[in-house]
Amino acid sequence: MALDLRSQALKNPIDVAEYLFRRLKQVGVQSVHGLPGDYNLVALDYISKVGLRWVGNCNELNAGYAADGYARVKGVSAIVTTFGVGELSAVNALAGAFSEYVPIVHIVGYPTTAAQRDGLLLHHTLGNGDYLVFSKMSAQISCAVSMLNDSHEAATLIDNAIRECILKSRPVYIALPTDIVQKKVDGDRLNTPLDLAYPPNDPEKEDYVVDVVLRYLHAARNPVILVDACAIRHRALDEVHEFVEKSKIPVFVAPMGKGAVNETLPNYGGVYAGDGSNRGVRERVESADLILSIGAIKSDFNTAGFTYRVSQLNTIDFHSYGVKVRYSEYPGVRMNGVLRKVTAKLGKLNIEVGPNPNNEIPEVELMSPEPTITQAWFWPRLGQWLQPNDIVITETGTANFGIWETRFPADVTAISQVLWGSIGYATGACQGAALAAKEKGIKRTILFTGDGSFQLTAQEVSTMLRNGLNPIIFIICNNGYTIERFIHGWKDAYNDVQEWKYKDLPAAFGAQRGQVLTYRVESKQQVELLFMDKEFSGGDTKQLRFVELVMPWDDAPQSLKSTAESAAKRNAEAAMSPA
Amino acid sequence: MALDLRSQALKNPIDVAEYLFRRLKQVGVQSVHGLPGDYNLVALDYISKVGLRWVGNCNELNAGYAADGYARVKGVSAIVTTFGVGELSAVNALAGAFSEYVPIVHIVGYPTTAAQRDGLLLHHTLGNGDYLVFSKMSAQISCAVSMLNDSHEAATLIDNAIRECILKSRPVYIALPTDIVQKKVDGDRLNTPLDLAYPPNDPEKEDYVVDVVLRYLHAARNPVILVDACAIRHRALDEVHEFVEKSKIPVFVAPMGKGAVNETLPNYGGVYAGDGSNRGVRERVESADLILSIGAIKSDFNTAGFTYRVSQLNTIDFHSYGVKVRYSEYPGVRMNGVLRKVTAKLGKLNIEVGPNPNNEIPEVELMSPEPTITQAWFWPRLGQWLQPNDIVITETGTANFGIWETRFPADVTAISQVLWGSIGYATGACQGAALAAKEKGIKRTILFTGDGSFQLTAQEVSTMLRNGLNPIIFIICNNGYTIERFIHGWKDAYNDVQEWKYKDLPAAFGAQRGQVLTYRVESKQQVELLFMDKEFSGGDTKQLRFVELVMPWDDAPQSLKSTAESAAKRNAEAAMSPA
Ligand SMILES: Cc1ncc(C[n+]2csc(CCOP(=O)(O)OP(=O)(O)O)c2C)c(N)n1
Ligand SMILES: Cc1ncc(C[n+]2csc(CCOP(=O)(O)OP(=O)(O)O)c2C)c(N)n1
Ligand SMILES: [Mg+2]
Ligand SMILES: [Mg+2]
Repeated sequence: MALDLRSQALKNPIDVAEYLFRRLKQVGVQSVHGLPGDYNLVALDYISKVGLRWVGNCNELNAGYAADGYARVKGVSAIVTTFGVGELSAVNALAGAFSEYVPIVHIVGYPTTAAQRDGLLLHHTLGNGDYLVFSKMSAQISCAVSMLNDSHEAATLIDNAIRECILKSRPVYIALPTDIVQKKVDGDRLNTPLDLAYPPNDPEKEDYVVDVVLRYLHAARNPVILVDACAIRHRALDEVHEFVEKSKIPVFVAPMGKGAVNETLPNYGGVYAGDGSNRGVRERVESADLILSIGAIKSDFNTAGFTYRVSQLNTIDFHSYGVKVRYSEYPGVRMNGVLRKVTAKLGKLNIEVGPNPNNEIPEVELMSPEPTITQAWFWPRLGQWLQPNDIVITETGTANFGIWETRFPADVTAISQVLWGSIGYATGACQGAALAAKEKGIKRTILFTGDGSFQLTAQEVSTMLRNGLNPIIFIICNNGYTIERFIHGWKDAYNDVQEWKYKDLPAAFGAQRGQVLTYRVESKQQVELLFMDKEFSGGDTKQLRFVELVMPWDDAPQSLKSTAESAAKRNAEAAMSPA
Repeated sequence: MALDLRSQALKNPIDVAEYLFRRLKQVGVQSVHGLPGDYNLVALDYISKVGLRWVGNCNELNAGYAADGYARVKGVSAIVTTFGVGELSAVNALAGAFSEYVPIVHIVGYPTTAAQRDGLLLHHTLGNGDYLVFSKMSAQISCAVSMLNDSHEAATLIDNAIRECILKSRPVYIALPTDIVQKKVDGDRLNTPLDLAYPPNDPEKEDYVVDVVLRYLHAARNPVILVDACAIRHRALDEVHEFVEKSKIPVFVAPMGKGAVNETLPNYGGVYAGDGSNRGVRERVESADLILSIGAIKSDFNTAGFTYRVSQLNTIDFHSYGVKVRYSEYPGVRMNGVLRKVTAKLGKLNIEVGPNPNNEIPEVELMSPEPTITQAWFWPRLGQWLQPNDIVITETGTANFGIWETRFPADVTAISQVLWGSIGYATGACQGAALAAKEKGIKRTILFTGDGSFQLTAQEVSTMLRNGLNPIIFIICNNGYTIERFIHGWKDAYNDVQEWKYKDLPAAFGAQRGQVLTYRVESKQQVELLFMDKEFSGGDTKQLRFVELVMPWDDAPQSLKSTAESAAKRNAEAAMSPA
């Protein structure tokens, strides 16, 4: 082997893999998700070496979902997979993270650079000598791709990837060949932390935009604030909170923005999603003379089928990439700085009083003698059981729409995938979120998943047990894919699922004696008793809690019904030109 | 909507989805794998309509594996997924099918052509209006991509895709937008079956190659035939069988070619994989003066780490894309025709007597008083329990190497993924293979999976139950990723898995009373008793059978040990130039 003068000259040489994991630790990663494979095994040795935890998931898709859940709680996460088979198994989870702006560092163990160069016919290849094909696929769903094929660039490429991941809040892909793992890089670089600050706005431009915003704000009599997902994902929550509290303007959230706003504030009004909103909310938002829209993602499911009835002429849009006032665009001005200054210079506003928040269960439901746990009853009722700081994860299906009706206590983190909507996500994400919660001292992580969705990724309950996690898991048992029935195939067999004995799974997944508490609730009264049960509800209960929550197969939240109807209509829509 | 003269003129108009599923039925598909999603729901209605069965898998990756297993038994299969979330979940399974030459028609339900054209912000998109990104990813692992965006091309594109799928023996991708599903195409096209014959070789060229082959064959004193995966995948087994039986040349199989040859023939010698072979096999093959290599895939795991010791100067390679005699290449001459003519014109050969096949258990093992079920004992012993026509599926791990030591009865189909090697595959593939077996009247489908691998895709046992399948499942319980331990991390926690109560899973997955028989065997004697149990072994037993097969954590077949050693060495290998 040729003598490598450059690495000999390093004052404090450390191995590439050690550098990588130390950097991840510096930015807040404490646990690494993923599965082993022979192309990443040696790299895995460095995880415990630098004091990180290896989670050890059951499969890579679930690991990707878990990394997503972990990142939503901790701000960033990491997953390690093996070349080809492992990384492609995870690709749907990473695509979801790309779509929904979740920062995940995906590290893929690659065959040696020599094997790649020679196009060897190795296991986990397509058999055609093409070693770039998988990275090309992932490039479509990553905001940076770093191929660590040369140790002299490795540290720079690692730093760039992690910085991009966090600043763009999207997945990055790092290819780590087995022969690079132990090559040396300059360890002293680690003494300089990564610069993770957003580049500040051009002050003159920012001031200009702030003035425009203030002008409209001061002219408004009846403004509302509407907060959506990107306010969370692009880390503008502090700015939003200050603005909301100081301005006292009535504030609403889009479904994907659930959790962004303190719902106990007197000016909090509820979830706005066009026709999917409560009537009070809809009227209030749609009659506003100014809508301060922060971090909007106006996807079909986030707007109950594109049913927003607000005019761009009344709207100011705040985004990570710019601000738009009516039709005037101000690209490159990040919302964070603008919101901070708008709040600082707010002055006196001249606005009407906001609506009162309402935690009550709809009266018809309260009075109903019917013991059945209906969707209309359950979700508002849930709000009274939740506690500050809870992490609440809901799956695509009835849960994701039901949660619109749940009024949160302060500081609840809501996790869901309204845009990407991959079922099975929530159970995987619950593992990651529960682990992140444990690391942050958050007491309760609560999952609501449909029975159909749970079947996709059920084995991640095993990973929760293995890692000593104690989330509270509700399986909505309603005999199959109810959300799909409302779109098409009301009673068709393809919307049925095999009926599992869900409660028996934790034990089969190797739960120790006393590690799990299981429940089945079939009536409202049983729900009430469950919610009153201190052991079940307690933040200090060590056991994982697993509930079969039985609901009717043909019941769904109102918002789901109207969204499903609109989806069915769109799917049937013929193009205007004959196709 | 503009009047569509062309479709009005159709004499026998049928819906695009009906056309598609009828074509699939014509080529032998009887069951369709996959999951529903709102972009494919309406299309699913046509599956039962044309008399196909909908399997209803637990998740899309598993559905992809199942489709792979089904195709390996029936010659072709189909899977339906939904846009984005569904298709990307399956992509690793499809990549495996691409790598290993398995023909799967992947049908993806797409949003309407109008939504695509307008770049609508729909659920299951990346939120960027790009509707081509997923098809671009799948194009990398498909031999044809048919976007059915125009009903006038739809029938042609469907026919092309199915034909390519079968002739190239690789996955194809069909995008079916919701607004195209019920557009009309010409139903009369269905009266003309697809032409699925391989284009014949140029006769002059073929004769030339046959003469060359025969010249070498007649000069040889000590030739051997070595049969590998592509002989199976490219449908040359009839030609191989005739050649082997008529020529009586000693015949060996590569690991991926297991099952291609009738192992009860007197001229069958065993598995050749370089240093991974038994000594007798290795000596016999490596001392041959001519190797007739049919359908070789010389990947690392198929050659025990590239340890073939045979010279190209002694080799004739037969492939689907051409023949190579020593270093002379004859591209475009498909092996099938050449082998047929070589057999026909064989004449008298002048060869030595072949080795005797040997079904016995190695003597040391037989004598050993140790009750432990060792890998060295189990796999040869298994051969005596197998029956003609069995389908035997082995997972990447100890099973995939152990099976080299199992002498098969006649007509056994072996299924494994030696090149792609994605764990979890075998359990999914077992569902598909067992269903295909049922359709073909094959009695026993037998799975051997590691405990670690099983955890990736365990829920497909539920799909087996749902579909009334009765495979025999062996879980090799050895406390984790033994194959990985032999490569790196002998006792490292990342090679451990959560210890499941595997036997309790079928019941938790909703097995009816009497639908499953479960067993746990921990000693050789218990294996013997199990194998003697008529209910367990019977081909007519209706129950799914589920066995915990306990083996030592630190034990592996000899061939695995040497392959693992070579993989570890390669992974550590520094490139010649400093990287
Ligand atoms: C990976 C994936 N596959 C398929 C779908 C299509 N899909 C969306 S929701 C759903 C059914 C969910 O059913 P369940 O979890 O039981 O929820 P319910 O509405 O019954 O509460 C399906 C199949 C999807 N979104 N993602
Ligand atoms: C999808 C995927 N993830 C990871 C790997 C890496 N890998 C190969 S074999 C193996 C362990 C298999 O363990 P087990 O099934 O228990 O088999 P054993 O060797 O113990 O019999 C792993 C993790 C892989 N091949 N595919
Ligand atoms: Mg359900
Ligand atoms: Mg194992």
